[in-house]
Amino acid sequence: MLKKGVFITFEGPEGAGKTTVLEEVANKLRLDGHDVLTTREPGGIRIAEKIRAIILDNTHQEMDGRTEALLYAAARRQHLVEKIVPALTEGKVVLCDRFVDSSLAYQGYARGLGMDDVLSINRFAIGDTMPDLTIFFNISPEEGLERISRNDEREQNRLDQESIHFHTMVYEGYQRLLKQYPDRITTIDASCEIKTVTENVWKIVSSQLISE
Amino acid sequence: MLKKGVFITFEGPEGAGKTTVLEEVANKLRLDGHDVLTTREPGGIRIAEKIRAIILDNTHQEMDGRTEALLYAAARRQHLVEKIVPALTEGKVVLCDRFVDSSLAYQGYARGLGMDDVLSINRFAIGDTMPDLTIFFNISPEEGLERISRNDEREQNRLDQESIHFHTMVYEGYQRLLKQYPDRITTIDASCEIKTVTENVWKIVSSQLISE
Repeated sequence: MLKKGVFITFEGPEGAGKTTVLEEVANKLRLDGHDVLTTREPGGIRIAEKIRAIILDNTHQEMDGRTEALLYAAARRQHLVEKIVPALTEGKVVLCDRFVDSSLAYQGYARGLGMDDVLSINRFAIGDTMPDLTIFFNISPEEGLERISRNDEREQNRLDQESIHFHTMVYEGYQRLLKQYPDRITTIDASCEIKTVTENVWKIVSSQLISE
Repeated sequence: MLKKGVFITFEGPEGAGKTTVLEEVANKLRLDGHDVLTTREPGGIRIAEKIRAIILDNTHQEMDGRTEALLYAAARRQHLVEKIVPALTEGKVVLCDRFVDSSLAYQGYARGLGMDDVLSINRFAIGDTMPDLTIFFNISPEEGLERISRNDEREQNRLDQESIHFHTMVYEGYQRLLKQYPDRITTIDASCEIKTVTENVWKIVSSQLISE
């Protein structure tokens, strides 16, 4: 029997194709009869949107790393309470583009705030609502950034403008998370064609839904 | 010899007279030759001001208590980094109207989030920069609110509109902090005339500066 109310997050460097694949997999799930919510922080939640606008404002160069981490945790909390938890309670499959692991890799590791400390403020934010499954889109930071720079339609924000060194550190942070949470996080090769990536993600997601 | 670079915070229920007394004491300190910074969160720090605007927006009735606590911690961090730490480094006496104890009493105790949990996110925000001295303005929540309602010039924000029950809980939260940090927090009777309160606070502050 298929169990509903499953929380799946998509993680990885910029330009890994997460957003595109997430929508394709959601469509497949819907064709299979699942009730699906696709979302990403701040997810149209007005308080979270306002917090996010402060984080991503290109003029806020004076923002301290810990301020940023606390703001991400605050936006995450409001998005979780207003959108994710109600959907899980209704038995939906929730596909979320980035979640707590992004904060651990970006702020905890790459900004050097400490993964344990960033986890502790995020635990305050999310309580026990950890993802049932996390898919890590494995692509080198160089290739990810190359894809972004080819995409003229995507407006670059404050994080896109960080140095290649920063994005390499983010990648290393994710590698640590893979070792720390081997049961929760599954890696897929995101360097191949998007169609292949989608198929591979679909296999993982559908087998997770059967096993739940 | 007087030691400079002292961090003093003023705490207490709404309407306790903290703001007025703080400015009077600052003036006395300046006459005595001290370099003084008076501040309160968000303290004119633009990122902190924007965060504060989200917290105090009367229309944000859907704001979760944990989101609120994380936003206060974020605003506190930026205010600390941009304003308090530089002033302490320059050897100033910093008088701050409300700081971490407000979050512990308001969010930790009165909102029921847990004082230990709220302390942990605030420790992430402030690190080791705890106040050298905290003065608690002791006034019953009823009397404090009565004073606010008599003051037509003070625009009521989202927190002023909370019930008397909430403000009673805040008061109880402060009582717990007094027991928990007896060395750091000194209580003064804030129910008497403002002139008397100022004199009593002045005695405590000046003896602290001599002992430092």
